[in-house]
Amino acid sequence: MGKPLELHPDRLFPADANCRTVARRLYNEVKGLPIISPHGHTDPSWFAENNNFSDPQALLIAPDHYLLRMLYSQGIRLADLGIPTNSQIHGGEKVADPRSAWRLLAKNIHLFHGTPTGFWLNHVFSDIFEQTEQLDESTADHYFDSISEQLQKDEFRPREIFDRFNIEFLSTTESPIDTLKHHQKLRDSDWNGQVVTSYRPDAVIDAEHHTFQQSLQFFGELTGEDVFSWTAYLEAHRKRRADFIAVGATASDHGHPTAQTANLTTAECQQLFHRIVADQVSPEDAELFRAQMLTEMARMSLDDGLVMQIHPGSFRNHNQWLFDNYGSDKGADIPKRVEYTNALKPLLDCFGNNPDLTLILFTLDESNYARELAPLAGHYPCLRLGPAWWFHDSPEGIMRFREQTTETAGFYNTVGFNDDTRALFSIPARHDMSRRVDCSYLARLVCEHRLEEADALAIAIDLSYNLPKLSYRVSDAMGGDR
Amino acid sequence: MGKPLELHPDRLFPADANCRTVARRLYNEVKGLPIISPHGHTDPSWFAENNNFSDPQALLIAPDHYLLRMLYSQGIRLADLGIPTNSQIHGGEKVADPRSAWRLLAKNIHLFHGTPTGFWLNHVFSDIFEQTEQLDESTADHYFDSISEQLQKDEFRPREIFDRFNIEFLSTTESPIDTLKHHQKLRDSDWNGQVVTSYRPDAVIDAEHHTFQQSLQFFGELTGEDVFSWTAYLEAHRKRRADFIAVGATASDHGHPTAQTANLTTAECQQLFHRIVADQVSPEDAELFRAQMLTEMARMSLDDGLVMQIHPGSFRNHNQWLFDNYGSDKGADIPKRVEYTNALKPLLDCFGNNPDLTLILFTLDESNYARELAPLAGHYPCLRLGPAWWFHDSPEGIMRFREQTTETAGFYNTVGFNDDTRALFSIPARHDMSRRVDCSYLARLVCEHRLEEADALAIAIDLSYNLPKLSYRVSDAMGGDR
Amino acid sequence: MGKPLELHPDRLFPADANCRTVARRLYNEVKGLPIISPHGHTDPSWFAENNNFSDPQALLIAPDHYLLRMLYSQGIRLADLGIPTNSQIHGGEKVADPRSAWRLLAKNIHLFHGTPTGFWLNHVFSDIFEQTEQLDESTADHYFDSISEQLQKDEFRPREIFDRFNIEFLSTTESPIDTLKHHQKLRDSDWNGQVVTSYRPDAVIDAEHHTFQQSLQFFGELTGEDVFSWTAYLEAHRKRRADFIAVGATASDHGHPTAQTANLTTAECQQLFHRIVADQVSPEDAELFRAQMLTEMARMSLDDGLVMQIHPGSFRNHNQWLFDNYGSDKGADIPKRVEYTNALKPLLDCFGNNPDLTLILFTLDESNYARELAPLAGHYPCLRLGPAWWFHDSPEGIMRFREQTTETAGFYNTVGFNDDTRALFSIPARHDMSRRVDCSYLARLVCEHRLEEADALAIAIDLSYNLPKLSYRVSDAMGGDR
Repeated sequence: MGKPLELHPDRLFPADANCRTVARRLYNEVKGLPIISPHGHTDPSWFAENNNFSDPQALLIAPDHYLLRMLYSQGIRLADLGIPTNSQIHGGEKVADPRSAWRLLAKNIHLFHGTPTGFWLNHVFSDIFEQTEQLDESTADHYFDSISEQLQKDEFRPREIFDRFNIEFLSTTESPIDTLKHHQKLRDSDWNGQVVTSYRPDAVIDAEHHTFQQSLQFFGELTGEDVFSWTAYLEAHRKRRADFIAVGATASDHGHPTAQTANLTTAECQQLFHRIVADQVSPEDAELFRAQMLTEMARMSLDDGLVMQIHPGSFRNHNQWLFDNYGSDKGADIPKRVEYTNALKPLLDCFGNNPDLTLILFTLDESNYARELAPLAGHYPCLRLGPAWWFHDSPEGIMRFREQTTETAGFYNTVGFNDDTRALFSIPARHDMSRRVDCSYLARLVCEHRLEEADALAIAIDLSYNLPKLSYRVSDAMGGDR
Repeated sequence: MGKPLELHPDRLFPADANCRTVARRLYNEVKGLPIISPHGHTDPSWFAENNNFSDPQALLIAPDHYLLRMLYSQGIRLADLGIPTNSQIHGGEKVADPRSAWRLLAKNIHLFHGTPTGFWLNHVFSDIFEQTEQLDESTADHYFDSISEQLQKDEFRPREIFDRFNIEFLSTTESPIDTLKHHQKLRDSDWNGQVVTSYRPDAVIDAEHHTFQQSLQFFGELTGEDVFSWTAYLEAHRKRRADFIAVGATASDHGHPTAQTANLTTAECQQLFHRIVADQVSPEDAELFRAQMLTEMARMSLDDGLVMQIHPGSFRNHNQWLFDNYGSDKGADIPKRVEYTNALKPLLDCFGNNPDLTLILFTLDESNYARELAPLAGHYPCLRLGPAWWFHDSPEGIMRFREQTTETAGFYNTVGFNDDTRALFSIPARHDMSRRVDCSYLARLVCEHRLEEADALAIAIDLSYNLPKLSYRVSDAMGGDR
Repeated sequence: MGKPLELHPDRLFPADANCRTVARRLYNEVKGLPIISPHGHTDPSWFAENNNFSDPQALLIAPDHYLLRMLYSQGIRLADLGIPTNSQIHGGEKVADPRSAWRLLAKNIHLFHGTPTGFWLNHVFSDIFEQTEQLDESTADHYFDSISEQLQKDEFRPREIFDRFNIEFLSTTESPIDTLKHHQKLRDSDWNGQVVTSYRPDAVIDAEHHTFQQSLQFFGELTGEDVFSWTAYLEAHRKRRADFIAVGATASDHGHPTAQTANLTTAECQQLFHRIVADQVSPEDAELFRAQMLTEMARMSLDDGLVMQIHPGSFRNHNQWLFDNYGSDKGADIPKRVEYTNALKPLLDCFGNNPDLTLILFTLDESNYARELAPLAGHYPCLRLGPAWWFHDSPEGIMRFREQTTETAGFYNTVGFNDDTRALFSIPARHDMSRRVDCSYLARLVCEHRLEEADALAIAIDLSYNLPKLSYRVSDAMGGDR
């Protein structure tokens, strides 16, 4: 028998009784608002095909790099969690079956005490799969059977789950070399769920990416442009952005190592591009090219209206052995220090004063919240602050974001929450966490007589619903046949 | 009808009932202490001429870059806030009249929810101009008329306001090429208000400043020194420091891009200075010269007793277009990361162990509080920590300062509060915020049994009054005919 | 008469009444657990000789650099605190007698309000020396006499104090050129106290250390190896590590300026070592050699089982004048910014995925907690996070550590507390502070419904006792005749 599993109605609210009461009142007004999810990594084929998920391991372990990284950090092999290795290398290594993997998670569930992953899992277990006992070794098999069974029902298919979660808008992320066939199928279907894409061109911009040359080749084929010339390369981007917009995209996204931007002359761009498409690219050229392309993307955004997002500072695939054996997105990306004040200046010198551009900045380096990001967003008309991101998308992390940005940037230079997840079933848990923590922060301001409760309530609603719609120009995507 | 405007007596105190009670008791003992304002940017002509302010826009919008930056960040043009553009460029652009600008502020007042600007404004509205309804679109005209009317009264003139605010000492900031005529006039007047100056020589030290060569020229004329030779240049500084001291200065102030110091030989100084006064200066030379001049200023301080302040890390006029069109101090300065441990070593190797020097360090990079600044100030006899500065001069910012410096540097290596403002009417609000937050921090220590309440009270009084006087050697300036 | 001195039973617990109640319950279960002190700097001769301490100055002032630095920062000369100067330079300078030094501390005790030093001192005064009045000028002589008298008793000798403090395991730190005679004497004695050593090879690894060449010479003599050849130099390390293990060592420790690691080929290592043992070493070579040696040490750890610790980022002896006149460890070390993500990659590429290696990371740069350290430790099997260190070993510092690491790394990638002290009598105070703050953090999670109290209790016990034993492989040292 496991211990009882109950989600406390006051979870994440302040310990102080008065603050808790205010937080509760604020939260009651926002908890039922529709979910706007303008940035994430769910798979569009889920919604296009609407097939059932197979089992708890495939649904909850395999796609969740938060979960994999914690278990791996304690010496648990990924193969034992049911993650297949690169077959060329580990052809003979045994990959655990789903049930064994699930038992291993259950046995190590204490590792997630005090972590957002623990919170999200319990939310999913209780709220979606109606489990009444905590997951541990004694309940592992019951969980596995019960969830497996439920997953086979119609109401647990992706589209039904989307509707049940009260998601009004959800964006996935695709590369310029994606054919968008899933999104096209969605557009052609009679389902009303707003699942759109975002333009994430890193694969054809980052010359240090190991598949850059092939991606470029395919980029040319898809667009019919000679993408090895600078002018046609830019034209190819314009064409693909239009394709993405045609299936609902309202934003582009840029996951660069740094926030560096550049503003070269056309001649300099052409020379640089010439070196970039050659075989051997220097790190300096690759960095300069990424920098210049952020400025080019901003220029295109002023033409086509895509909101622009920069997600800098992740050292991707830091663990070379793990990458060679298991590939990307297994929890081996590590943040780095990032600089913004100097890095963004070239782009801001071009477009910083234009309120028609929306450029949303993210960080994994919290030391920038108060030092660089809030001052930048609290001045430049084009800039907004994305929410606490990735490792910081947690109760303490979201609270630090508000505490360190609000006084300089206010609430209205922020854009509400992003769940940024490929873990579909955790989406309501993540938005719920964000709403609870924002309400807790606002409640403290109310109790410290720094904000009136009526104003706090208006802000809570804006953060939960209005700001994400406005900032990501979601209404644009809502309309008819755009 | 607007919503009622009331300043809650417990504002900024902790939400916890016990802590709040202690904070109240501490605050009651310090709220009435005179204001020591040893670092700020009010205009000495206000006090020298004692003319009435014209209207709310001129008093509360135009000089307040916190306010301008937030409104600008949301796409509001500065011209629409009544800020004149550079006429050569925008000869024809319409600048809003004061009442229209005021209405625009009123319409957007929600942007300041949860910000220190919102707190300061409400304090001024309620406490000084006795408004009883909140500023919004419905009350904008009433506010404009009411404040305009009050501003014409004698008791709202600068000297009367100064006395009403219970300011014991206030320092403005002037450049070495200022004639000090306003301060001289103040000295010659029969008014007893202690308004003094500070020596801020950046204009004749920063070779990258666009008016450096002209400033140097004028520096020579004012001092009668051939300031294009190193020895005479230093002598010119000594003369002007003496001039500043003669009108009450107790401190110098240095707003450098970095905290870099240097300790060159005389021969190296002469060669460097030779390159500095030439037409084209390299960034490296400019940086090295600023670095060396901090050490020279420290040396002079040991002779003439001026307390030295370093304010590093602001990227001034980051927005080139705004600077070209509207000039400086419009809210477009952005903080940068700053390093202290290595940067200060050359100066500290010279004078760090001399307790006769007082060198007050500020930062816009809070990651230095616990890492570099508290350890440095908690060791070197010459060093003290300036208060939370600029973007961090806010409830959360002041709290972080105490939380991150006290355990290593204690309270007695800090110097109390600086308002650092050109917004005269906000001075009491700013000191009140600081006192409230310090008392809240102390109250928490008391309630966590980390400090006895009697000791907390002594510290609260020291932070509010004694430490600023002592650290800035204010008693020196109080005396008769120095 | 002094003010009463009482240690409040709820000290350091949260101010909120509910959280305090939970914290009390958790603390009651861990307060009596034995002390595991796997990293510190007490003198092994104390335990080997078991002589009485002479007086309060020698016991409490002279070895405590926290105390010295704060007093020095306020202009108090070290000689006046009884610290002898380098006689060649200050042959004639008067060094205060112990009683005068003690009076000077008493007079300035207010400087320690709100600091961990103040907390530790009061704990020692009250709990160990049974003082009932606070230390101040009026009680200074009474304190001096009372403590001096007690120190002469048998029960205040080092071994008796060790047993009274309920210390189960204590590690000192020695250099490879230490003969380990005190530890050998301890092993040969009939006392059962587990006092062991740690291998800290900085003196023979840091080519920039001013005694490097002599240390190397002595390293060769002790090991009988020709340590000026790369192969034999490594062999000398292996021999000495075995010597350390023979007297109980379970860990090595590395106090480098940075966290840089390297992975050179054998040929590159030999060429680098050739340059390192030559007379003039470039800073780049010195850094590269330290970097490579971290990787070599990790390799040896996989053979001999020593847990590895990296303590980077302290600028040792920052104050040149103080170092010249008073030597090291007088409170003049200053933290610097540190980078981990890139710096550790070479070592992690070699051994990062091997759970048989335990590499414990420390920092003086808190901006790394959430950005680099928790993500690294939350992924790599070999990595663990050391506790809040040195300047951050304080109520706020320990709390920030938990708040900024738990959500990404969890509790089980941390290793419990290190007192890291040479102040023997403060050891219980330091562990008590850590346990109280951890319980306060856990209590807040419980009250915010982020953790169940039963789980919090298990974690509190693990943090206080089980994790330090496990992480430092303490049971290995406990055994019989190893």
